[in-house]
Amino acid sequence: METILQRRKRLLGTRVPQYYDTPFHPVSGMGVWVKDVTGRTFLDAYNNVPHVGHCHPHVVEAICRQTRTLNTNTRYIFESILDYAERLIATMPPELNVCAFTCTGSEANDLAWRMARCFTEAEGALTTTHAYHGNTTFLDSIDGTSVRSRRPAAAWWATIPAPSSTPYPTVCAQQAVERLVDNGYKPAALFIDSTFASDGLLMPEPGCLGAAIEVVRNAGGLVIADEVQAGLGRLGTDLWSWQRLGLAPDFVTMGKPMANGEPLGIVVTRREILEKFQAEDRYFNTFAGNPVACGAGLAVLDVVENEKLQANAASVGRLLADSIRELAKRHEYIRGVRGIGFLLGVEIAKHGHPEEPGPQETRWILNDMLRRGVLVGLTGPRRHAMDTLKVRPPMVFTSANVDRFVTTLDQSLTALAAAGGAKD
Amino acid sequence: METILQRRKRLLGTRVPQYYDTPFHPVSGMGVWVKDVTGRTFLDAYNNVPHVGHCHPHVVEAICRQTRTLNTNTRYIFESILDYAERLIATMPPELNVCAFTCTGSEANDLAWRMARCFTEAEGALTTTHAYHGNTTFLDSIDGTSVRSRRPAAAWWATIPAPSSTPYPTVCAQQAVERLVDNGYKPAALFIDSTFASDGLLMPEPGCLGAAIEVVRNAGGLVIADEVQAGLGRLGTDLWSWQRLGLAPDFVTMGKPMANGEPLGIVVTRREILEKFQAEDRYFNTFAGNPVACGAGLAVLDVVENEKLQANAASVGRLLADSIRELAKRHEYIRGVRGIGFLLGVEIAKHGHPEEPGPQETRWILNDMLRRGVLVGLTGPRRHAMDTLKVRPPMVFTSANVDRFVTTLDQSLTALAAAGGAKD
Repeated sequence: METILQRRKRLLGTRVPQYYDTPFHPVSGMGVWVKDVTGRTFLDAYNNVPHVGHCHPHVVEAICRQTRTLNTNTRYIFESILDYAERLIATMPPELNVCAFTCTGSEANDLAWRMARCFTEAEGALTTTHAYHGNTTFLDSIDGTSVRSRRPAAAWWATIPAPSSTPYPTVCAQQAVERLVDNGYKPAALFIDSTFASDGLLMPEPGCLGAAIEVVRNAGGLVIADEVQAGLGRLGTDLWSWQRLGLAPDFVTMGKPMANGEPLGIVVTRREILEKFQAEDRYFNTFAGNPVACGAGLAVLDVVENEKLQANAASVGRLLADSIRELAKRHEYIRGVRGIGFLLGVEIAKHGHPEEPGPQETRWILNDMLRRGVLVGLTGPRRHAMDTLKVRPPMVFTSANVDRFVTTLDQSLTALAAAGGAKD
Repeated sequence: METILQRRKRLLGTRVPQYYDTPFHPVSGMGVWVKDVTGRTFLDAYNNVPHVGHCHPHVVEAICRQTRTLNTNTRYIFESILDYAERLIATMPPELNVCAFTCTGSEANDLAWRMARCFTEAEGALTTTHAYHGNTTFLDSIDGTSVRSRRPAAAWWATIPAPSSTPYPTVCAQQAVERLVDNGYKPAALFIDSTFASDGLLMPEPGCLGAAIEVVRNAGGLVIADEVQAGLGRLGTDLWSWQRLGLAPDFVTMGKPMANGEPLGIVVTRREILEKFQAEDRYFNTFAGNPVACGAGLAVLDVVENEKLQANAASVGRLLADSIRELAKRHEYIRGVRGIGFLLGVEIAKHGHPEEPGPQETRWILNDMLRRGVLVGLTGPRRHAMDTLKVRPPMVFTSANVDRFVTTLDQSLTALAAAGGAKD
């Protein structure tokens, strides 16, 4: 008899990723709760795609109503795409005033790149060192999280370090631009995830990148603010994480949380950029911005506003971070808590070496917390250095959920100490 | 007071495409029927995304049931993705035995390219001359429909003509491979849409490309069969259009029709290709292959089987083509009918010049048929030569629908003649 895991490997490949050592098989969800195939309930402290909570009734109703009525594409006229675009750009500065639609965050970053290249008539790409911006052929070629060494870095790509120290070394931006120019490329755009999630989840001082970005702009490059992971109020401080960092982007790209799991990606940009692109280039995406996706997107905006979820991320997120820091006084495994709001990283130390990163310990805790009924994730600056628990719950996470989370983390850390650390 | 069109231009750009001169604003749909905002009902003879008909109850129910229950991602375990993969590969030869999931057809072609490049360790791309395979940065750079001249064709891309004459000039494939090799690139893959939809919708003799493909294979290249437009029984003769052409592809890429509008794209390939890619590279796509999309995909497969829609495409498609050919005896505007099943092109002549292509006349008919309550589309080998009406209805199109379509086309052609042709 073939197990479900064997079947998965047979049909999807032996190395298709999963989060846990023991596979997790969820079958239903509601709010911050997920039920697995055995009927056990888990607290979800990890998933940001169900932004307003799993199966939120307002979003479910919007999707089902439109699915029953009509699903079509943007070459026809319909209202919800316009209502959605209007509400989205109302959250941004006046110069970011037009929308283009995609299905995924990867497609949004890829399209922003096509537009940036068209507008600047340049071909050079800049990212932070370990950034990840998506899975297309182009975005894969600027993937800083990759452990690949087979293919050399493209001559038209250069990186700047994520801002981990103050002041930020602006010379790095100068060097990156020079590397491009030396290779024969002017910079078209700098991609910035303002939470530097793949660089280890950093929340640097607002404004710290100002001079570096000035260097890129002076060389003709635009700025693409990647909100695919951090956007829509998750930080609590602002709706968009680039606002916290004090950027003035030319593009904002969005994906994961925007329609609570229904595929919806968006590029918001300046009119002159979109107009030049539409005049000189061509873009159509069959499913992108369809009425079901836009209905879901509108419903998500409703819930974020009506349930005051940005404020919830601020206050409950602070409680969560403070509670974990409190725990750190009793557990030397906790080296620190990074992040803001509902985007937190808990840096884990090696057993007996509180100053050293502990990727094995981090993975041990991830799996142990699953056994104890709580879903968290992993992150780190490189795939072989995943030394940080990623805590990124749905935005409806409550203070009672914080209690449950912290109690469980406490139990896991105690168990890890009792086991004498994580073994290979 | 801003009109909806002005609002659309303000929010989505002044050149965001739409199908018609007078914008069409649909608000609901069922089967082959679409109702517009004024309450008028239109016959849909164009849309292939609602493959089993607009708002098919079985698909709607599958989407709504899963949306209410749980939507998650492929890093968790769930059954429907495995059930779907199993049913999909059961329609293919034994060597095409694994699936990778995307959200769109563009993403599927882009991912197939990443896999082909990884497996062959080569970087050269081949397409037919005017082919279109999607909207990512990579796919845009091999877009043969483009009217752009700003950016020169990449040195790693070469084209072969679509097979319009018999025998196919195999020397063209030799020259294309030589062009790549001269530029320093070995071929990684040849993309083939087996209906050559963007090359003007051609249905060449099965087997005609055999020798040309042999040239590509001998140089190390793989074959990517793009079924994004033509797949899932549309031709009537076969479930996949590459089967009709007699290809033995290494990849089959799918998109538009697979989940009746819910974003679902798939790459089916050989195990050794996927395994090498998973071992050496990295791919994750947040929304791809989610339980809602897979549920919708399974429901679409149910309907295609239960309602015998491939057989319907064969018989009703033949009736449709024959009826249009019958009409050609009375209207010299009809230069010919190309295509098979529910993928037909009606080539339109210039007024008074029955041997010359009539793109203005084609566009006139498109708009006139809309006024008369029937949706069709345009195609042609280049954007400035759209001289073909594209007739590509939902798969539930009936012989009564054929009557309505042909009567309307007859009226349009009569009106066009009475108007003395299409004016600028």
